[in-house]
Amino acid sequence: MIFITRREHFNAAHRLFKPEYTDEQNLDVFGKCSNPNWHGHNYTLFVTVKGEVNPDTGFLVNLKDLSALINHHVIERLDHRNINLEVSFMAGLLASTENLAIGIWNELMDPISQLGAKLHNIKLCETENNFVEYYG
Amino acid sequence: MIFITRREHFNAAHRLFKPEYTDEQNLDVFGKCSNPNWHGHNYTLFVTVKGEVNPDTGFLVNLKDLSALINHHVIERLDHRNINLEVSFMAGLLASTENLAIGIWNELMDPISQLGAKLHNIKLCETENNFVEYYG
Amino acid sequence: MIFITRREHFNAAHRLFKPEYTDEQNLDVFGKCSNPNWHGHNYTLFVTVKGEVNPDTGFLVNLKDLSALINHHVIERLDHRNINLEVSFMAGLLASTENLAIGIWNELMDPISQLGAKLHNIKLCETENNFVEYYG
Amino acid sequence: MIFITRREHFNAAHRLFKPEYTDEQNLDVFGKCSNPNWHGHNYTLFVTVKGEVNPDTGFLVNLKDLSALINHHVIERLDHRNINLEVSFMAGLLASTENLAIGIWNELMDPISQLGAKLHNIKLCETENNFVEYYG
Amino acid sequence: MIFITRREHFNAAHRLFKPEYTDEQNLDVFGKCSNPNWHGHNYTLFVTVKGEVNPDTGFLVNLKDLSALINHHVIERLDHRNINLEVSFMAGLLASTENLAIGIWNELMDPISQLGAKLHNIKLCETENNFVEYYG
Amino acid sequence: MIFITRREHFNAAHRLFKPEYTDEQNLDVFGKCSNPNWHGHNYTLFVTVKGEVNPDTGFLVNLKDLSALINHHVIERLDHRNINLEVSFMAGLLASTENLAIGIWNELMDPISQLGAKLHNIKLCETENNFVEYYG
Repeated sequence: MIFITRREHFNAAHRLFKPEYTDEQNLDVFGKCSNPNWHGHNYTLFVTVKGEVNPDTGFLVNLKDLSALINHHVIERLDHRNINLEVSFMAGLLASTENLAIGIWNELMDPISQLGAKLHNIKLCETENNFVEYYG
Repeated sequence: MIFITRREHFNAAHRLFKPEYTDEQNLDVFGKCSNPNWHGHNYTLFVTVKGEVNPDTGFLVNLKDLSALINHHVIERLDHRNINLEVSFMAGLLASTENLAIGIWNELMDPISQLGAKLHNIKLCETENNFVEYYG
Repeated sequence: MIFITRREHFNAAHRLFKPEYTDEQNLDVFGKCSNPNWHGHNYTLFVTVKGEVNPDTGFLVNLKDLSALINHHVIERLDHRNINLEVSFMAGLLASTENLAIGIWNELMDPISQLGAKLHNIKLCETENNFVEYYG
Repeated sequence: MIFITRREHFNAAHRLFKPEYTDEQNLDVFGKCSNPNWHGHNYTLFVTVKGEVNPDTGFLVNLKDLSALINHHVIERLDHRNINLEVSFMAGLLASTENLAIGIWNELMDPISQLGAKLHNIKLCETENNFVEYYG
Repeated sequence: MIFITRREHFNAAHRLFKPEYTDEQNLDVFGKCSNPNWHGHNYTLFVTVKGEVNPDTGFLVNLKDLSALINHHVIERLDHRNINLEVSFMAGLLASTENLAIGIWNELMDPISQLGAKLHNIKLCETENNFVEYYG
Repeated sequence: MIFITRREHFNAAHRLFKPEYTDEQNLDVFGKCSNPNWHGHNYTLFVTVKGEVNPDTGFLVNLKDLSALINHHVIERLDHRNINLEVSFMAGLLASTENLAIGIWNELMDPISQLGAKLHNIKLCETENNFVEYYG
């Protein structure tokens, strides 16, 4: 069993808030992350897949295929987007790093299994100081 | 003459667009950076000041004072904000990294001279791949 | 189950030595790390906690609370300190990265459980080339 | 149980290809990585070992010994070398990051056990965007 | 006057040697960098251009255009290539980082002036520990 | 004219204080950096030299020679040392990053000129957030 990780990036806007709260209540719970005018981040995404090395290629998966798959299913839908308003798999969810990591896992699990590998871990960094990991 | 640099961070939303253009025209000129629903970045700011070492302290400036000054005049006004809508020194300007670096220079030049140093350089990184430098 | 990690920093002095050894014996076992005049490091600490996402907030824990807790219980006691002389939870222990990581785990385990999460991992980096991980 | 990791570097040339293929077939399967004139990388290697802290030293292993061992068994054989032509433990294997990580594991497992620790993980980074992990 | 920098990467093989020397003489002068079987690096390239901000766009240059230009004139000719054997602008030159930085400057100066900016600096990093800068 | 930079590291203890002050006065001026029990840092040093490329070698200077010189004149005297107590070129000076950068410049200027290059810049990083540059 071998593990291979691909790093990708996206830049997006978001806001942490509950629509049933007033702006004051949201500020109280979510602090400056609740700013109604949005803020944003350079997110860094690490996708780790696992499986056996193919003796014909020396690869677990071809990294070009893995990168293309991540870009198609995740990056193109998040990059330069508003996570609250424009990302279908986040609809109705709080736009936290936790929920975003789980959403990315759900989008990638099936496509990666069709590459012949198994999704092992999503690591999503919001800043240099904070990151979330999800193993399904 | 010695140069000392302080690194600070802020996370903000922005959009590149001209209000007199349609969304289609903005998309044509500014690409996905013109998304009307905003996107955002983790900006990294390097402020370099210059001057003589004070023989009583061994310092050019006390870095706590320099950091507090940068936070008061720049970071608190940009962090978790929408650069187009909420930052007075960017009003009426395209929210490009170039204009933002120049705006930060203008906000810091006088306060830093009151610390007994001279502002030398603003370096503003929008992503790991792109940064702007301004020397006045 | 989700994992969230907070990065913090502290700068401290230490020395690796056994008080029952002579300086020569300490030099023989611990090399230049045994210098009786001390040396120091910029330590980087990663604290990983685990648990369920709270559906009301989208958070496992509020990162401001986690950061404040780490600062109160660990960083304020280590930052700009001498690990051998001034850190009560290291008293009588060799000031190695291994023992420091275990000591930090012991200080954080109970407070983090009161935040509603479980401490999963302490990762402590002494330099870019060396780090220790402890899982309890 | 504690885990300690040492980072090392090596710079090497390699080529991904199968000798029974034509250059055209290799280009089709391996892309520009199959260039018959070689290309190369700055590889970063993380070696993680695990075991108990020795109460006499505060160490799991002495990092100088661990670094010397990694350099003797791995780095000196790979650094400024051609992985396809000059590295005996890669003879007959595709020079992929996956196979290289497994080869490094095999070279280090026994020597590390003689240090009194157990090899836990090899992490091998080919670029900032791609890395492989192997746990035996 | 504003300065904007774009970072790009390429991975290449090279060898430091003089063809009129024997392998032994090359080893004596160039050390392990003279290995006749080649070695390689992940090079990081920073291209800095300067000029005035265009008030219509807020840009000095459109970074997509700058990146495309650097890729066309430099990266595509170096990435996954052998610098000694396959890079026309390095023919007959020692494949040192110094000569490579100067060669990249010469390839980029005219195309960048056609973008409406002036090439200011080439910074070329061979490893984390070594880099060269050239200002023409 | 070409510029080449070598990065080196050292770990050291220091304290910011004036011996004619009481501990209370030192705390008032220098904050926690005045702790009488010392603290320390992982310092990162960048030494930039300039000159002409030697057409026989493609080098400005041989980086092995430059690194050996920096280690002999600076790193061996600072690494795992107490800057206030053990570094002769800092005797009688406040152990600030500013004074340390100037001291390193003074130690390196002559030896580097004997390598056939000219010292251009000392950049000394005390933490990721603070660095000093000195050009003589």
